[in-house]
Amino acid sequence: MKDDGPQATRRGFLGKTAGLVAVAGLATNAEAREQPGEARAEAGSSREPFYGPYQGGILTPQQSHSYFAAFDLITNKRDDLIALLGDWTDASARMTQGLPIAPFDPPAPSGPANAYGQTANAADDPPAPATPAIDTGETDGLTTARLTLTFGFGPGVFGKDGKDRYGLADRRPEAFVDLPHFVGDELVEAHTGGDLSVQACADDPQVAFHAVRQLARLADGTAQIRWTQTGFMPRFGAGQTPRNIMGFKDGTNNPAIRDAGAMDKVVWVGGEGPAWMRGGSYLVARRIRIALEHWDRMNLGFQEQTVGRHKASGAPVGLNHEFAPLDLDAKDKDGNYVIAENAHVRLAAAASNGGAQILRRPYSYNDGVNFTAERWPPWRQGMEYDAGLFFLSYQRDPRTGFIRIFENMAKLDMMNQFATHVGGGHFACPAGIRQNEFLGQRLFA
Amino acid sequence: MKDDGPQATRRGFLGKTAGLVAVAGLATNAEAREQPGEARAEAGSSREPFYGPYQGGILTPQQSHSYFAAFDLITNKRDDLIALLGDWTDASARMTQGLPIAPFDPPAPSGPANAYGQTANAADDPPAPATPAIDTGETDGLTTARLTLTFGFGPGVFGKDGKDRYGLADRRPEAFVDLPHFVGDELVEAHTGGDLSVQACADDPQVAFHAVRQLARLADGTAQIRWTQTGFMPRFGAGQTPRNIMGFKDGTNNPAIRDAGAMDKVVWVGGEGPAWMRGGSYLVARRIRIALEHWDRMNLGFQEQTVGRHKASGAPVGLNHEFAPLDLDAKDKDGNYVIAENAHVRLAAAASNGGAQILRRPYSYNDGVNFTAERWPPWRQGMEYDAGLFFLSYQRDPRTGFIRIFENMAKLDMMNQFATHVGGGHFACPAGIRQNEFLGQRLFA
Repeated sequence: MKDDGPQATRRGFLGKTAGLVAVAGLATNAEAREQPGEARAEAGSSREPFYGPYQGGILTPQQSHSYFAAFDLITNKRDDLIALLGDWTDASARMTQGLPIAPFDPPAPSGPANAYGQTANAADDPPAPATPAIDTGETDGLTTARLTLTFGFGPGVFGKDGKDRYGLADRRPEAFVDLPHFVGDELVEAHTGGDLSVQACADDPQVAFHAVRQLARLADGTAQIRWTQTGFMPRFGAGQTPRNIMGFKDGTNNPAIRDAGAMDKVVWVGGEGPAWMRGGSYLVARRIRIALEHWDRMNLGFQEQTVGRHKASGAPVGLNHEFAPLDLDAKDKDGNYVIAENAHVRLAAAASNGGAQILRRPYSYNDGVNFTAERWPPWRQGMEYDAGLFFLSYQRDPRTGFIRIFENMAKLDMMNQFATHVGGGHFACPAGIRQNEFLGQRLFA
Repeated sequence: MKDDGPQATRRGFLGKTAGLVAVAGLATNAEAREQPGEARAEAGSSREPFYGPYQGGILTPQQSHSYFAAFDLITNKRDDLIALLGDWTDASARMTQGLPIAPFDPPAPSGPANAYGQTANAADDPPAPATPAIDTGETDGLTTARLTLTFGFGPGVFGKDGKDRYGLADRRPEAFVDLPHFVGDELVEAHTGGDLSVQACADDPQVAFHAVRQLARLADGTAQIRWTQTGFMPRFGAGQTPRNIMGFKDGTNNPAIRDAGAMDKVVWVGGEGPAWMRGGSYLVARRIRIALEHWDRMNLGFQEQTVGRHKASGAPVGLNHEFAPLDLDAKDKDGNYVIAENAHVRLAAAASNGGAQILRRPYSYNDGVNFTAERWPPWRQGMEYDAGLFFLSYQRDPRTGFIRIFENMAKLDMMNQFATHVGGGHFACPAGIRQNEFLGQRLFA
């Protein structure tokens, strides 16, 4: 990373003064205006609110697609960070309501700049970008697809390399501890961490991609993408529990998002947290690669013992109904536990973790294939899937949430033979945003 | 690649005799049976036919998601290839009709093998895979999502490294030439070529992923994945032309899939081809990386000149309606062409290529971000998108289709400043499959 000298140059290079001031100006007129690039066909149910007591994308019924981006802050100036959060707020308020961040088809500029296109050819340099197309345009004509944008602050906001870059070191919440190294962690640096997080979720992958892309453009000179992750959910029926790519139903025992009491207990930071985090939540994200080639060679009984549930029904092993309560004490006639000591559901259960719970909001990911080779039987070389679960969990306190639950699982879970944590991050997601407020404003108060 | 000795071992290791014979047996009972893992909630319109005069996924109205896989054949035995095509046919006939390749929840095996799960733990080796779970299960409960599977034969089927592995060298169609090196090609070996191709398209990414995964499992010991590519389309309204991630409408001038005459002329191999290719088509696939960071800094007028169309309306430059005919002769008052000499639409137009046309069926792709660094102003390091267009084109003859059209575009298209071909392949997709026939059977007749 460089300090802010070169970035200031870059910001100028990109016509920030022309393009992005225009964005800010338009954002104050967020009412839909009839002009090219503004109108979208809308189904009544395709918009999720942006302003409110909580950020969207946490309790929102899960959309079919996700695009997550972690950013590194490349400025040392508190005001740059504040300006970015303001720009992101305005743009997000517009995009979640089906508007481009600014029209991509503004009135033609006057003057001679208009002639470039006719004379440019592949051998010429492209013309200097005088008036950037302000929205990239690929969502024009699409529905909002229930787009939500969920933002979080990584540890670097509160200081990095011993430097309190933004004067926020004493604002770091006590609960926002660094994650320990868990047994078996194989975190890839280039896919881990980040100072800011954005989780875009929508029922259309192009809408999610568009949103992250606009936010990254608005961040130019202040923050840059560190890593990203796409995710998808199958289109499952109402009332059904979706299956992940291990083939099992995933989420049967998740706390109910419509149970406000449970959400207050499990998800939302309360009076114990700093004011800016009350109504916020802590995100722990883990990119979990699944060794599908190995998993697919296990027979059904072994898979079911590993999970602790039957594959077809989702019922706990030995039972018939998906939502039958887990009986962790049940034994078979030989005195062995019906749900194995090291079964995934046993180790994840609240009863095994002093009542600890988190809200999981995971997506499957499919990043294609990577080369591998084995030099023992059956000797081979070839490609293996880079696919698995992009695990996203929200919790009131990571110490009594993910850390409490996963420390034991990391050591004992039978599923660890197939699941490796290869990236991720943890972020403090502040409370929801009020009208006329910017994202995280209370952190700077 | 290894020769078939070790693979034969591997095939045995995977319990092929147990698992896959069962698949073949079940496939002859392709009628839906009421047993666990067989039932799926179906909307009437969610199934595409598998058997028919043409393969699905070519003229099928484009589904929202695609998962493409190119395979290397790792056998030298003609019978292995034939057996694979038979297995793929049976599995595809089932999956496209909403059935798993075989139940994933078969009756519990009898005997002592059932005890493993209770005693296994993370420190033990997993049990030997006696009865692989035969379908991986992740589509149970989902609709078929209009799944189509489109198969093609790469050049390696007709000989490789001077060896006619399958006795098919003299069956290679005259039209199925090797692609030339086009100006600007930056094809990455690990993302290029392949002996067999499968394009799975569905309105649910999990359905497409599942299909490729089952086919890869069935191929074990005979073929292995060489490269894959995911793709998506936005959910655009009926009668609309979707926008790709350059923000422009893409496909306005594509020949109409409902125009049987045009399809016969442009897409389907006729009497000029070998019998096994009549009713088939040649696929040219190209992974086209778009330099979005650069594109997004171009102003609107430059983008429109590059494409030759207006961004908002999709109309040819200077006109108002998307479907207004391209007037390639129109000039402005200074005598310059209104649609620039090197505009994308001009160079792609049939009128510029002696009437040559292809059927494009492209998907956008988003493979996250990769590290880059620049050592000239504005000095920076950071991530750039690995995103763009997975260009899939079908044609009656590549020599008068993609090759004819792209040779000129590769040299002159202004869009080449932003679009780089970084992978792909070309495949002979045989005619559709008749009942009681296997995929490509007429090639072996």
